[in-house]
Amino acid sequence: MSGRSGAIDVSGTSGTDGAGGGRGARERLVVIGGDAAGMSAASQARRLRGPDELEIVAFERGHFTSYSACGIPYWVGGDVPDRDRLIARTPEEHRKRSIDLRMRTEVTEIDVAGARVRSRDLETGAEAWTSYDRLVVATGARPVRPELPGVDAPGVHGVQTLDDGQALLDSLARTEGRRAVVVGAGYIGVEMAEALINRGYEVTVVNRGREPMATLDPDMGRLVHTAMEGLGITMVGDTEVTGFLTGGGGTSLPERSRGLGGGRVRAVVTEDATYPADVVVLGIGVRPETSLARAAGLPLGEHGGLLTDLSMRVRGHEDIWAGGDCVEVLDLVSGRERHIALGTHANKHGQVIGSNVAGGYATFPGVVGTAVSKVCDLEIARTGLREKDARRAGLRFETVTIRSTSRAGYYPNAALMTVKMLAEHRTGRLLGVQIVGREGAAKRVDIAAVALTAGMTVEQMTMLDLGYAPPFSPVWDPVLVAARKAVAKVRKGPR
Amino acid sequence: MSGRSGAIDVSGTSGTDGAGGGRGARERLVVIGGDAAGMSAASQARRLRGPDELEIVAFERGHFTSYSACGIPYWVGGDVPDRDRLIARTPEEHRKRSIDLRMRTEVTEIDVAGARVRSRDLETGAEAWTSYDRLVVATGARPVRPELPGVDAPGVHGVQTLDDGQALLDSLARTEGRRAVVVGAGYIGVEMAEALINRGYEVTVVNRGREPMATLDPDMGRLVHTAMEGLGITMVGDTEVTGFLTGGGGTSLPERSRGLGGGRVRAVVTEDATYPADVVVLGIGVRPETSLARAAGLPLGEHGGLLTDLSMRVRGHEDIWAGGDCVEVLDLVSGRERHIALGTHANKHGQVIGSNVAGGYATFPGVVGTAVSKVCDLEIARTGLREKDARRAGLRFETVTIRSTSRAGYYPNAALMTVKMLAEHRTGRLLGVQIVGREGAAKRVDIAAVALTAGMTVEQMTMLDLGYAPPFSPVWDPVLVAARKAVAKVRKGPR
Repeated sequence: MSGRSGAIDVSGTSGTDGAGGGRGARERLVVIGGDAAGMSAASQARRLRGPDELEIVAFERGHFTSYSACGIPYWVGGDVPDRDRLIARTPEEHRKRSIDLRMRTEVTEIDVAGARVRSRDLETGAEAWTSYDRLVVATGARPVRPELPGVDAPGVHGVQTLDDGQALLDSLARTEGRRAVVVGAGYIGVEMAEALINRGYEVTVVNRGREPMATLDPDMGRLVHTAMEGLGITMVGDTEVTGFLTGGGGTSLPERSRGLGGGRVRAVVTEDATYPADVVVLGIGVRPETSLARAAGLPLGEHGGLLTDLSMRVRGHEDIWAGGDCVEVLDLVSGRERHIALGTHANKHGQVIGSNVAGGYATFPGVVGTAVSKVCDLEIARTGLREKDARRAGLRFETVTIRSTSRAGYYPNAALMTVKMLAEHRTGRLLGVQIVGREGAAKRVDIAAVALTAGMTVEQMTMLDLGYAPPFSPVWDPVLVAARKAVAKVRKGPR
Repeated sequence: MSGRSGAIDVSGTSGTDGAGGGRGARERLVVIGGDAAGMSAASQARRLRGPDELEIVAFERGHFTSYSACGIPYWVGGDVPDRDRLIARTPEEHRKRSIDLRMRTEVTEIDVAGARVRSRDLETGAEAWTSYDRLVVATGARPVRPELPGVDAPGVHGVQTLDDGQALLDSLARTEGRRAVVVGAGYIGVEMAEALINRGYEVTVVNRGREPMATLDPDMGRLVHTAMEGLGITMVGDTEVTGFLTGGGGTSLPERSRGLGGGRVRAVVTEDATYPADVVVLGIGVRPETSLARAAGLPLGEHGGLLTDLSMRVRGHEDIWAGGDCVEVLDLVSGRERHIALGTHANKHGQVIGSNVAGGYATFPGVVGTAVSKVCDLEIARTGLREKDARRAGLRFETVTIRSTSRAGYYPNAALMTVKMLAEHRTGRLLGVQIVGREGAAKRVDIAAVALTAGMTVEQMTMLDLGYAPPFSPVWDPVLVAARKAVAKVRKGPR
């Protein structure tokens, strides 16, 4: 955080003027991060307050704004032909709405006491201070990059941002080899594995756990495992990556694994084996990108994310809000903070923050942990707590797993669906649902998501008036079948 | 109700013994009606109490038990190749579970004071009295057959029971003509129209209202209208059927329209025109089949259905339960009783009744009025109140209609979806949702069904943690987009 005095305030408003702007003065909102949360907040604030009332300055260090990071696997896989289709709103569109958007400009410091941020133009290197009346921190998340030999070698890619996706596609174009290794079998890892299979790569997924999709219980993850193998993906579970072999450097394994030569990645090394790789994708997960916030002394939680109140205001800071992948959110089921990087939350946070910074009122009550994904024609969904989560939260629970179908059994093309449900011991409160199936499995989890939000018991759920017609559901919806079985188990269990 | 004394009690238990069965005596449960509600009740009761404790006698006047009436259009249309696939459990299967099932035996009287029912074997004509300790009335619904000239002519069909469906198919097989007229454009009418189109018929649907699907508001029904025309169905709205021309009888129009000759139907006559018809399907709706209950003095509601308490016990009758299409249910949104004939409710009723008659405990809290349907690749869904219902309930409300897509806009094959939402004035409480679209429209209504059950406001709904991934939803689910717009309208409206 050196060099503060060397930067010039180019924003036309001194820190004092900005921070102390009196009644009637035009206030300035500064937004750090130009993707979902940041630009939703900026847009919503602009909707509520015109440029005469509120100046909005937004900083984005990358090349893109308001894009769908969730769409990157489909772009890499070729389902989405064009990168620009992932962009909901371009910098020019934001600027037309009187948002002073500074692209390729990285905020390098938040001066909380001085109510200003320091930024650096990544093209010119020029630095500047910009004062704020209200600040929105929307710095997102960064992919976990384990500190392993060779991890920074060319050909090893994260896929968190559109810039990351572009770098991966460029890297694929430069490489003739067709062997891809994906490290980590979470949502992103599995989606990227399918994307690379679709591009004709030979794909191996190396995973720490035995089963993919650690967001599911292992018995449900096993179903995904089988589907991945059906696609021709080689899944290696229960193993730890120890490093990456690269093309340059020494010739002995230890030397090469250090990646000393700076050459392109050539293999992924685990405790047990070495997997040749022309390209490596890291799908190990993400962490909140909160180095700026940490340096500024803003409050962080146990997962490294910013802590906010229900209005998304940073705790203890009247004029600072935070949202999106850089914050922790309240899990309404366990009552604990979690970190979930998901565009749908980021957009809601932005909406709430934008209302509040503009003098309106909105709150984000928390999440129940819903996530859905698609691997080939397999639909995967979860909401609420896994067994592990429930135990960690100190809950006793019953679990049931049922198999049913997506349509009435007699209706053509009814597909199998597996539903797992967790209910609290004694109270019967719904704790979580996981669904793996073909059509109709993913969004069916929304039934449970709303029921969790409402605090329903599995007994209440058995009588839910859900849509029924033979093309869409058996007469007892699979979720209700699971609820009925859960009721029986809760009743039978020791009281 | 004459001839009571002429019938013999063949059940082996006298009325007095049965009704007054003391502690430890085997009790007898009598069930009237062998479809969803009745046989679910019988099966659930059997699950909880063995044959040593509880004798179960069930009467069914038709040829089938426990079948999916909702599947009839798909059987007629050829999607379901075989009638037997619609049968969830055959008489033999029920009998194996120690249920004394008497097929083709119609109950002709309930003697409440004597705690017995009179039945008639439809094959032999033999009559008998059977006493009960507990009685379940599950007599279902009957299609509305307007008292019009010719309505009873051969070739005019209802499609409420499997027997009806078989009669229609037999009738189609006997007729060479390919012109079908469907009277009424509700769910059954529209589904039957599609079924007949699929069998190669030329189909005209004649409807009282301007738009099909009166369970939707007309602006949403209009979308179904367009889809029906796209299938080649001729839709004639705003017209009233006045009679049916038949093949026999006199030659003048007035004489023929009386169907005096008893010949097969030849045309449907409306106020405005005559539509030649080789077969006619009545899809005008159904009424509770409660003539037995009415004659027995059991309490009926304004829609003609039996009135029960939350345990599905007939009001004022300690030992009589009722469920399925013959009862009225509480609409949780309007607070009024409704009649809804739907297999999914009937099954739940049966489950609840079966628990209660066996000495367990269960309740059916009511419905929110969810219904889904499919016309070609159009998915149609509704839950809660239409504008008309809300007004009738004395509610003031705001409505919004939005168009969104089934998937992220950039994801291949994203389909348009129209969502209409009603929210209560001031409170913002969700009142109803209607969705018309292609994939993903029907079961999406479950989100609203659960939210209605929980009494959520549209503002609460905007922050629901619903499943999001590009193949399944835009980042703001269409239901949430509608909720956001509804919030804005509720806020803006006069307070």
